[in-house]
Amino acid sequence: MERSTQIQRGPNDPGLQNPGRRTLLLGSAGAMAAVSLLGFTPLARGEEPKSLPDYAAWKDRSALIVHSTNTMETHRGAIGQGVVTPSDRLFIRNNLPTPDKSIVADRDAWDVNIEGVKTPKKLTIGDLKTMGVTTVASVLQCSGNGRAFFPHGASGTQWSVGAAGCVLWTGVPLKTVVEALGGPVDGARYITSTGGEALPDGLDPKTVVVERSVPLRAMDSALLAWEMNDTALPLTHGGPLRMVVPGYYGVNNVKYVKNIAFTENQTDAKIQASGYRIRDVGQKGAPDQPSMWEMNVKSWVTAPLETAQNGRNMIYGVAFGGTKALSGVEVSTDGGKTWKSARFLGPDLGPYAWRPFVMAAELSPGEYRIVSRATDVEGNSQPEGRKDNERGYGHNGWSDHGVTVTVS
Amino acid sequence: MERSTQIQRGPNDPGLQNPGRRTLLLGSAGAMAAVSLLGFTPLARGEEPKSLPDYAAWKDRSALIVHSTNTMETHRGAIGQGVVTPSDRLFIRNNLPTPDKSIVADRDAWDVNIEGVKTPKKLTIGDLKTMGVTTVASVLQCSGNGRAFFPHGASGTQWSVGAAGCVLWTGVPLKTVVEALGGPVDGARYITSTGGEALPDGLDPKTVVVERSVPLRAMDSALLAWEMNDTALPLTHGGPLRMVVPGYYGVNNVKYVKNIAFTENQTDAKIQASGYRIRDVGQKGAPDQPSMWEMNVKSWVTAPLETAQNGRNMIYGVAFGGTKALSGVEVSTDGGKTWKSARFLGPDLGPYAWRPFVMAAELSPGEYRIVSRATDVEGNSQPEGRKDNERGYGHNGWSDHGVTVTVS
Repeated sequence: MERSTQIQRGPNDPGLQNPGRRTLLLGSAGAMAAVSLLGFTPLARGEEPKSLPDYAAWKDRSALIVHSTNTMETHRGAIGQGVVTPSDRLFIRNNLPTPDKSIVADRDAWDVNIEGVKTPKKLTIGDLKTMGVTTVASVLQCSGNGRAFFPHGASGTQWSVGAAGCVLWTGVPLKTVVEALGGPVDGARYITSTGGEALPDGLDPKTVVVERSVPLRAMDSALLAWEMNDTALPLTHGGPLRMVVPGYYGVNNVKYVKNIAFTENQTDAKIQASGYRIRDVGQKGAPDQPSMWEMNVKSWVTAPLETAQNGRNMIYGVAFGGTKALSGVEVSTDGGKTWKSARFLGPDLGPYAWRPFVMAAELSPGEYRIVSRATDVEGNSQPEGRKDNERGYGHNGWSDHGVTVTVS
Repeated sequence: MERSTQIQRGPNDPGLQNPGRRTLLLGSAGAMAAVSLLGFTPLARGEEPKSLPDYAAWKDRSALIVHSTNTMETHRGAIGQGVVTPSDRLFIRNNLPTPDKSIVADRDAWDVNIEGVKTPKKLTIGDLKTMGVTTVASVLQCSGNGRAFFPHGASGTQWSVGAAGCVLWTGVPLKTVVEALGGPVDGARYITSTGGEALPDGLDPKTVVVERSVPLRAMDSALLAWEMNDTALPLTHGGPLRMVVPGYYGVNNVKYVKNIAFTENQTDAKIQASGYRIRDVGQKGAPDQPSMWEMNVKSWVTAPLETAQNGRNMIYGVAFGGTKALSGVEVSTDGGKTWKSARFLGPDLGPYAWRPFVMAAELSPGEYRIVSRATDVEGNSQPEGRKDNERGYGHNGWSDHGVTVTVS
């Protein structure tokens, strides 16, 4: 099928602008060694492969910027104006190599261990499917989406805006499962999920295991999902079963989930203890720094990108509020000097979904800096600037996320 | 990608149950001649091709029952539980051969003529895209969906339940276009849309042209759509531009639309004058019979289909109210003797969308007749029986649409 929007690549995509960008997947001293052990292939500019790796071969190649074999983002021009991101355009970010496809051969047989509840139990997907079901639309976004805009050269994948999408997840509410097992044990403060990836030899498991803790409050919205966009959850995106925490950054949505524990403390796995922590540039990660949990309010323009026509144009974008619904989004064509309200486009899929927006603008020949600014129902608006931090997480500043468009 | 549900084919699919079913595409006396001239290939049972015709090759073959090269329905077991039907599983029903793909080579250059307005004008898709935009979820359903359940052997494609899907359409509201052109001329009572297919030689154009009139009231919701499910409208489904009339039967959603006229009378094209008319069995079609416009309230079960497990099962289905939102849907596991309310699943995409539903049921060994009954906000419920009519249109009786399931 043809895609709706012509993909424009150019100066508005910082990942392509900076030939010297760092493409390391891990920021620590042993990064290159670990990258090698995990079998990842970081790519320099111009090295993008023509085809996608096997596990992602079903994706729309033309919609994706391939940063490495395990990290691919959606082109800004391929995000579209839809309320749901078609699966074949959704970004990929894996912390470990994708498990063998044999784990999706008999989906209903996959089991997950539930611990830290009154009656701990191992449940198969077949069991879970009889317990309850819900469908929730929520934005999946990497913590480092927007990292490419940080001038200090934050290490990690140089995501622009495309490490995000809005997905329909179907599965059983975690709360339903936990209540059936008697509820969390006394003193539980966190939900700790462990991925089912095989851990590579030669590395301390704690340094590579995908194990994330989120606060117990997430239980009200979390689900164990077996479908994505009304299709059996692809292996590529964590199938057969994924922990989905609506409104939380991507890393908390643990793929191929094998264990869920209600715990008093957060896990001491590196990805939790020192990874995905907000700290000043130059600082090491530590458990007392803020963890990447609830997402902040954010938006960006998706069209036009480089050129617009003389006359009336439709300016499109997407906006979301993390765990909070949006109250509105404004657009400026003069780099933030003046703003007008944009209109949301299409049905509202709920507080965790993104909302495409549109605003008509008359543009005469010249250059325009088009930016957008979303506000959530609690009154939080996107800031103008960045909050510089070592790993380039959580960037929602409206200025960097704008596009410069020429009308001739 | 793997699909979520295993496709079950069997006794609940009448199209497969009746080896003698009629597979003619046109019901008139000259049907076979016309079929030949149009290049269609009706298929008898067991003749389904392994692959799909070129224009539909991107579809998920395993999700479709192929009735002919121009008519394919979604397996009941592939409908899924989603709020939107993935495009590659959506049914196909074309009245004429699909135009050459050259018409989607430069989509924005496609033009449509707007007549019967104060300032008639030819507008390109490029023009339309600057005028306005909306995204609407609506059910696309063939008038003959459910035809296979009529015992009199209504001629036409023997659709079971799968000539329907819920689609996100993006385009400009027709009202916006018409208002920009000064509004409809005085006395206009119908909106008449003409498809851009090349008409075959050797047939009177009026007998084959796809030209449909809908009442002027449809202007409040109609749109000229260039996207489907956030992807440029595939040629297969009427791209580059389709008239979409939310809540109306499929035939009114004219593909490759080239002309829209606000008219005092309905078109005298055969597809309007005598086609798609409700009349008694044995009667010929005529303009004074009800036309297939607004859809009626309807639902059906999508899972389980043939077997269920001993114990707790989730019963799934889809329900919609045509142009009216739903107030609820009930499910019976004893063929309609007793009913329980089912729960809607997932976000509500608006009054024209379908709503997946789910109900948990404890089933012990035995045979169950599972049926569903939807009610719209105006209190219209599905009837139990059929309203027999010559061409087998508009069947929404709950009894025929049920499934028989064995628990062992």
